[in-house]
Amino acid sequence: MIREIKLENKDINFRKENDSIGSKDIPEDVYYGVQSLRAAENFRITGLFMHPEIINSLAYIKKAAAITNCEVGVLDKKIADAIVKACDEILRGNLHEYFIVDPIQGGAGTSLNMNANEVIANRAIEILGGKKGEYSIVHPNDHVNCGQSTNDVIPTAGKITALKLLEHAQSELYRLHDAFSQKAIEFDHIIKMGRTQMQDAVPIRLGQEFKAYSVAIMRDVNRMEKAMDEMRVLNMGGTAIGTGVNADVKYLKRVVPNLSEITGMDLIQAFDLIDSTQNLDSFVAVSGAVKACAVTLSKIANDLRLMSSGPRTGFGEINLPAKQNGSSIMPGKVNPVIPEVVNQVAFNIIGNDTTITMAAEGGQLELNAFEPIIFYCLFQSIDTLTYAVQTFIDNCVKGITANEERCRDLVENSVGIITAICPHVGYSTAANLAKEAIKTGTSIRTLILEAGLLSEDELNEILDPFNMTEPGISGKKSISNELKTV
Amino acid sequence: MIREIKLENKDINFRKENDSIGSKDIPEDVYYGVQSLRAAENFRITGLFMHPEIINSLAYIKKAAAITNCEVGVLDKKIADAIVKACDEILRGNLHEYFIVDPIQGGAGTSLNMNANEVIANRAIEILGGKKGEYSIVHPNDHVNCGQSTNDVIPTAGKITALKLLEHAQSELYRLHDAFSQKAIEFDHIIKMGRTQMQDAVPIRLGQEFKAYSVAIMRDVNRMEKAMDEMRVLNMGGTAIGTGVNADVKYLKRVVPNLSEITGMDLIQAFDLIDSTQNLDSFVAVSGAVKACAVTLSKIANDLRLMSSGPRTGFGEINLPAKQNGSSIMPGKVNPVIPEVVNQVAFNIIGNDTTITMAAEGGQLELNAFEPIIFYCLFQSIDTLTYAVQTFIDNCVKGITANEERCRDLVENSVGIITAICPHVGYSTAANLAKEAIKTGTSIRTLILEAGLLSEDELNEILDPFNMTEPGISGKKSISNELKTV
Amino acid sequence: MIREIKLENKDINFRKENDSIGSKDIPEDVYYGVQSLRAAENFRITGLFMHPEIINSLAYIKKAAAITNCEVGVLDKKIADAIVKACDEILRGNLHEYFIVDPIQGGAGTSLNMNANEVIANRAIEILGGKKGEYSIVHPNDHVNCGQSTNDVIPTAGKITALKLLEHAQSELYRLHDAFSQKAIEFDHIIKMGRTQMQDAVPIRLGQEFKAYSVAIMRDVNRMEKAMDEMRVLNMGGTAIGTGVNADVKYLKRVVPNLSEITGMDLIQAFDLIDSTQNLDSFVAVSGAVKACAVTLSKIANDLRLMSSGPRTGFGEINLPAKQNGSSIMPGKVNPVIPEVVNQVAFNIIGNDTTITMAAEGGQLELNAFEPIIFYCLFQSIDTLTYAVQTFIDNCVKGITANEERCRDLVENSVGIITAICPHVGYSTAANLAKEAIKTGTSIRTLILEAGLLSEDELNEILDPFNMTEPGISGKKSISNELKTV
Amino acid sequence: MIREIKLENKDINFRKENDSIGSKDIPEDVYYGVQSLRAAENFRITGLFMHPEIINSLAYIKKAAAITNCEVGVLDKKIADAIVKACDEILRGNLHEYFIVDPIQGGAGTSLNMNANEVIANRAIEILGGKKGEYSIVHPNDHVNCGQSTNDVIPTAGKITALKLLEHAQSELYRLHDAFSQKAIEFDHIIKMGRTQMQDAVPIRLGQEFKAYSVAIMRDVNRMEKAMDEMRVLNMGGTAIGTGVNADVKYLKRVVPNLSEITGMDLIQAFDLIDSTQNLDSFVAVSGAVKACAVTLSKIANDLRLMSSGPRTGFGEINLPAKQNGSSIMPGKVNPVIPEVVNQVAFNIIGNDTTITMAAEGGQLELNAFEPIIFYCLFQSIDTLTYAVQTFIDNCVKGITANEERCRDLVENSVGIITAICPHVGYSTAANLAKEAIKTGTSIRTLILEAGLLSEDELNEILDPFNMTEPGISGKKSISNELKTV
Repeated sequence: MIREIKLENKDINFRKENDSIGSKDIPEDVYYGVQSLRAAENFRITGLFMHPEIINSLAYIKKAAAITNCEVGVLDKKIADAIVKACDEILRGNLHEYFIVDPIQGGAGTSLNMNANEVIANRAIEILGGKKGEYSIVHPNDHVNCGQSTNDVIPTAGKITALKLLEHAQSELYRLHDAFSQKAIEFDHIIKMGRTQMQDAVPIRLGQEFKAYSVAIMRDVNRMEKAMDEMRVLNMGGTAIGTGVNADVKYLKRVVPNLSEITGMDLIQAFDLIDSTQNLDSFVAVSGAVKACAVTLSKIANDLRLMSSGPRTGFGEINLPAKQNGSSIMPGKVNPVIPEVVNQVAFNIIGNDTTITMAAEGGQLELNAFEPIIFYCLFQSIDTLTYAVQTFIDNCVKGITANEERCRDLVENSVGIITAICPHVGYSTAANLAKEAIKTGTSIRTLILEAGLLSEDELNEILDPFNMTEPGISGKKSISNELKTV
Repeated sequence: MIREIKLENKDINFRKENDSIGSKDIPEDVYYGVQSLRAAENFRITGLFMHPEIINSLAYIKKAAAITNCEVGVLDKKIADAIVKACDEILRGNLHEYFIVDPIQGGAGTSLNMNANEVIANRAIEILGGKKGEYSIVHPNDHVNCGQSTNDVIPTAGKITALKLLEHAQSELYRLHDAFSQKAIEFDHIIKMGRTQMQDAVPIRLGQEFKAYSVAIMRDVNRMEKAMDEMRVLNMGGTAIGTGVNADVKYLKRVVPNLSEITGMDLIQAFDLIDSTQNLDSFVAVSGAVKACAVTLSKIANDLRLMSSGPRTGFGEINLPAKQNGSSIMPGKVNPVIPEVVNQVAFNIIGNDTTITMAAEGGQLELNAFEPIIFYCLFQSIDTLTYAVQTFIDNCVKGITANEERCRDLVENSVGIITAICPHVGYSTAANLAKEAIKTGTSIRTLILEAGLLSEDELNEILDPFNMTEPGISGKKSISNELKTV
Repeated sequence: MIREIKLENKDINFRKENDSIGSKDIPEDVYYGVQSLRAAENFRITGLFMHPEIINSLAYIKKAAAITNCEVGVLDKKIADAIVKACDEILRGNLHEYFIVDPIQGGAGTSLNMNANEVIANRAIEILGGKKGEYSIVHPNDHVNCGQSTNDVIPTAGKITALKLLEHAQSELYRLHDAFSQKAIEFDHIIKMGRTQMQDAVPIRLGQEFKAYSVAIMRDVNRMEKAMDEMRVLNMGGTAIGTGVNADVKYLKRVVPNLSEITGMDLIQAFDLIDSTQNLDSFVAVSGAVKACAVTLSKIANDLRLMSSGPRTGFGEINLPAKQNGSSIMPGKVNPVIPEVVNQVAFNIIGNDTTITMAAEGGQLELNAFEPIIFYCLFQSIDTLTYAVQTFIDNCVKGITANEERCRDLVENSVGIITAICPHVGYSTAANLAKEAIKTGTSIRTLILEAGLLSEDELNEILDPFNMTEPGISGKKSISNELKTV
Repeated sequence: MIREIKLENKDINFRKENDSIGSKDIPEDVYYGVQSLRAAENFRITGLFMHPEIINSLAYIKKAAAITNCEVGVLDKKIADAIVKACDEILRGNLHEYFIVDPIQGGAGTSLNMNANEVIANRAIEILGGKKGEYSIVHPNDHVNCGQSTNDVIPTAGKITALKLLEHAQSELYRLHDAFSQKAIEFDHIIKMGRTQMQDAVPIRLGQEFKAYSVAIMRDVNRMEKAMDEMRVLNMGGTAIGTGVNADVKYLKRVVPNLSEITGMDLIQAFDLIDSTQNLDSFVAVSGAVKACAVTLSKIANDLRLMSSGPRTGFGEINLPAKQNGSSIMPGKVNPVIPEVVNQVAFNIIGNDTTITMAAEGGQLELNAFEPIIFYCLFQSIDTLTYAVQTFIDNCVKGITANEERCRDLVENSVGIITAICPHVGYSTAANLAKEAIKTGTSIRTLILEAGLLSEDELNEILDPFNMTEPGISGKKSISNELKTV
């Protein structure tokens, strides 16, 4: 499962790089440096690569920092320009393969930050005519990381990435909302039995159910929107512990506006950079909003699985589109595989939320060093939600059809309609009628007529199932306010 | 919600007690002392009392310690006897009202341990003819707590309590196993449709389903049994940090055997008392076993709710006994309230497991100070599981009845029986037949006969639903091994 | 652990009550009726009572419903007045002892709703001159529950209760914010070492740390405020499944405004009552906000425990007030018991969030029947948070003192100040100096002077620790922009 | 993030394949078929591939099934041999790239099972001289899947995979145990202060602490071993719902022994195949054991981070080996990055446990369809634990060194040694001495001598720190049993 970083190839040439730990051979042609390679060796945990969007976020940040440092006179323009060019290459999708550190890594993201610093420095060195490793031309720490610290760069990168991914999620959720809304219109005339606690309750229209799904999704979109506001508040400029040590004061004020402009995102600097550097509760809040959305989706997926249960021995009210053979042994079986994947993604998001919470709780003093696992889980939560919603819309919701006749039959066969009788005969009498109906199989209508409780005309009005799906005491107008009792 | 400790009554008299913090008025007639009262004031979190069983466990421990210290000559016999008598009174249910500390408390249970030490000391003082508060006669720390520390007493008390509660849980689970086994026999002849992913699969007997429930429950009982073994390993004798400081060497060897004898439980001393004092992973393991059982129970509860869904518009295969009116508005509605409470208890146990895990992870160096929340959650998990199982058996499982005719009708109506045809005609042909059957509503039998794939005799043998509920290729003997294709 | 409902007393008289299940003896003098008693017998899970605030919420709702039904002509004024009077008695704290159902109960809260209906009906009957049980005078379902269903009453009651409890939590959090703010001022002059990943980083002022705590708490208060908005949206009027069946149309429009007026709370009716009846994601959102606050609190508690570690062998930067003896075996030991209880409450809240999430995910079709466990956990989360914050403020934060000298000594002893040198000599040179300092024990200052990298004057400016706690490149003005290298 | 399955290449040729959904173009040269491709299109969730070990597990299973079916006369020998050959190729690491389905997929793993069936069938067809897609030669369902169902194949594959991965985890845990044991010996002579609740407690030897770590790890290994037993119990032979429909009776008895032989693993068939098919609690149990181990590891990682805190302003008792630069801004900073990655892996495992629990709870009737997410999370938990332990041993534990002098100084500076005085002077007197010592800074020894409580000789024996790290009342022999009080 673990990706090997193969460096043993005899034919490749190496350059030597040094850090506080010592000297190390680095393949001559790679853009990462000694610190990236040590980190890649220290953390071989998942064998996966960093999310491409956080690599882009780092490029945005390094670009904004270079521009700002240059503006305020801390960074030479030639160097700044080269850094900007290198960042732009990353943003065009190049150089990503040199980000070799594992997404689960110790050290608050220093490895990732240094990976970015080294790749950008080496590319900038080349742009300025040097050879990789000639850090006197462009230095990963002194120039690329100028006025920055892992501790403001990495949380900022995480937030920008989250915003990007959440926007994608939202656009899919809007599509889902629309898909449900369309079904709500399509199914608005179909009367079916409502069920509470999976027991027959009172009639509802299938369209009303799909309308409710669309409304629930919009609430999730709105909640996500609010949570995104927490992602817009950055600690860039706070450097190591939020006090802004080693950041030029003018840089500190300009870097977030510049980043905002470069990314085209609405970003602001935190009011208290110390707080903002040590606390990751905003990621807990975002994960919570994603989780609430997952709960909604999973509930809807469960409903669709229930309503489509059958085809012969279940509820059988709707049909999900058949997307693949359902069984390797049972021919012709078609399973609700798309809702099932929605459920599973939801379960995973809920587990990720626990992980994110624990990691956020684990911060100590001036820093929370557990950002890498928070990012890994949060990005996975948002991405899998997005892709699950995508397949949910296109491979399930859009193709749902209704078994109108079956729905109607079930309503007519049910005793739940007794509820509408209740305001006219009282709860106790109604309860007795219901019990009798279930026991004997006689219809409610017959029992009431036999008992002479209501006339046929009154019953026709009261028991009109469509009436029962709208607010009001069914048949109230035609009947006096007095309870009729046997 | 918070219980007030009312001490402001003007008419009561007070005695003065001192501790490192200072002097404090204690109501004259209460058995607890200054440290209990301070703790009760510091921790007003839940307003609840300690679980009575952990109070008993503490009495067992203090009794065993007094006896052992006396045996080895560290404690005066007169004092030891008085302590033993006081403990016995607690074990008879007396003095519990003087355990005033909140179950959620800071300090690794020191407050609870001191509450026990003070109550026992004061009662022992009385037994020896003194007045409450005369600690020169029997001292809470020097005598009642002799050779002990909160850090060995409290984990030990938690384990003994867990064992006691788990025994209770197991006895209810055995009863549940028996109830399912009886239903398995009662329903063994009832053919019904098996469902996978809530889609019609192949026939099964209702009795087989209940048999599976009984087997699953036994696996949980066994798993719980193994987890209980972890509770039998105690760190008594380790005192403050597991090194056994201030515990007489002979006492250290004798205290667990004595405790074992007094409680009638099979208890052993940990191999490494330092490890055993600082790690609470055994509680995580026990919570995990309880949680796995909760998962099984919740799944069964879900099944019962599905199978009893209806009465008219659901699966309607079984009936749960009606235990209360189901609705305040819908007369005659009966809901699966007992399985629903089982579900909810399961959810709570799963959440408690997260809490217990976090608390166990939070230990630092020589001690994990978060035992109180672990105990609070674990005891709640075991207790609520026990009582949920109790009502599950008596108010639900025992009274379940089957709708035999409905079950049979659903099988006959289903296309899932095509699976048994598969070995005779091949998967592809069978899949086409199934598709045709679902589309046209024609029965599988008719389609096969029309296509001339199998004879009526062959079909009778192959499609016998009872055969399909037992292992084997249905109709294999009568038919050659060659696939028949159209 | 389980509260016994003792009815076996031979001397008490009984009245007979009937429901769909049959007839049952009810003690003559109690206000609850047959449905409450059945529920109390069916659900003996925790042995606890309902939270008093949800009983009050039900009284508000029943009062608002009676008034509204009377306004629109569905309920007789005499009956409505009696119901209102009974509700007011409950709101004054009376009759609470007749709410006998367990907080963990099956059935979507029908048991609790009926308990309220029965208590109010019986009290209203008495007010109208009847005897308990004479339901023809005031009927629990037909009158008290008129136009309502468990399925709109119970979620509404849960939301009103949550709002009430959250207001209490917020007021304590404001107090905590103030306590931290005061400490921030008090400690603003104390220079100490900042630590990231528990390794020496750069200087910070103790007051800045406490300021950051206060800011973090305010963010939680604001997040909670937003989550509370979700609690203001009610499904009252939706009745059984949100379609409003059996609710008079005018009642449906008036009931929430009336409830808003009666409670003095800002409440609105949901846009889609069907959605609002079947989805409990808003409780997930609220629990998420409470959880994020718990994370913040736990992190702060961890910090205080770290900074006060010692007194001799730890960080020893601050002292927490001694509130109780810390150990039963180690004399004079004082432990951080108050922060520890904050941690434990946080762990429990995080576990409760898992439970609430699972329960919310478990909704099916027109209803989520798992409100009882959601309420039980959510109310516990909010209450324990509130009370933990209370003791945190009064028994810990307010009394914290600083060891100013120790803080200063640690800064002077540290090599972390090398960071401020970095912009002047470059990262690589600085790293070598730091390594040398740690290895040899020589001070950074000495090493730099020996190497002739900077003058003493320059160093004095650069290494001023106060400067390092504020933004900016320390000593930038006096020194050129060129890196000095050896 | 999502891997694109690129099929639009104009130059490639296609074959047509059919299933119940219809006809579809499949690239001519790939071994997967129509069902795999549909699944890959339906589930683009993580963009990742299946774990290679579960692909191997499927090869073992298909091989065992072919051999067994052949033995009992249900499968033609020529076909069986070709299937076995194809499986062996997979086991040698070939053909893995044709397993194209996403690890998070709907449908209980049918997609994965069919992916295996198709790849093996197509390879077997080639072996028998046919062309890919000529399923009349070897059919994915009729031959490769003969006598099997997704519902017995997939849980079996999951269990075999878990066993394989757990064995790897265990071997690393043994290595960790050994590494700690060696450090225990190396550090056995180093006296240091023990801390409870991060407050000075009583002396302990650093070696004792590392010994405790080694013992805790062994308990985890043993617990894992027990959990692995649950993985050895397979439902192979149960086919669709555990009734064994379509499995030859002799095959049913032989398949697990054959699988056991082929894999070299100790595997047995479940007693009740119906239970075993529908319940996934055994995965919950395994995840629980892995989680308990994660808790232990995280606690140890926390301890190492605490003990190595500093280098100058923390505990500073031990040094972790420097593995990479710790900061991009703070030169020379070395952070505990390896323990930090252990923490993060632990948090992720704890979150995964929540996901696994929810998925296990979600089973319905004859099947739990949520195996894919359980496998995804469980395999990740075990793998990341294994790799985290690997780096923990090699990059951290083995290289830990102790600051012996600092450890000794802290003990001598501490007041915690008062505990050993307690048995000689009583708790109250000792508490007063401790308070005085902390307040005045005078040493405990001096205070006792000044008060004339004990002689210098007595004190020398009692306060010998080494004595205090072993069981017993320090100085008991030389001193009478009477308390000395001032």
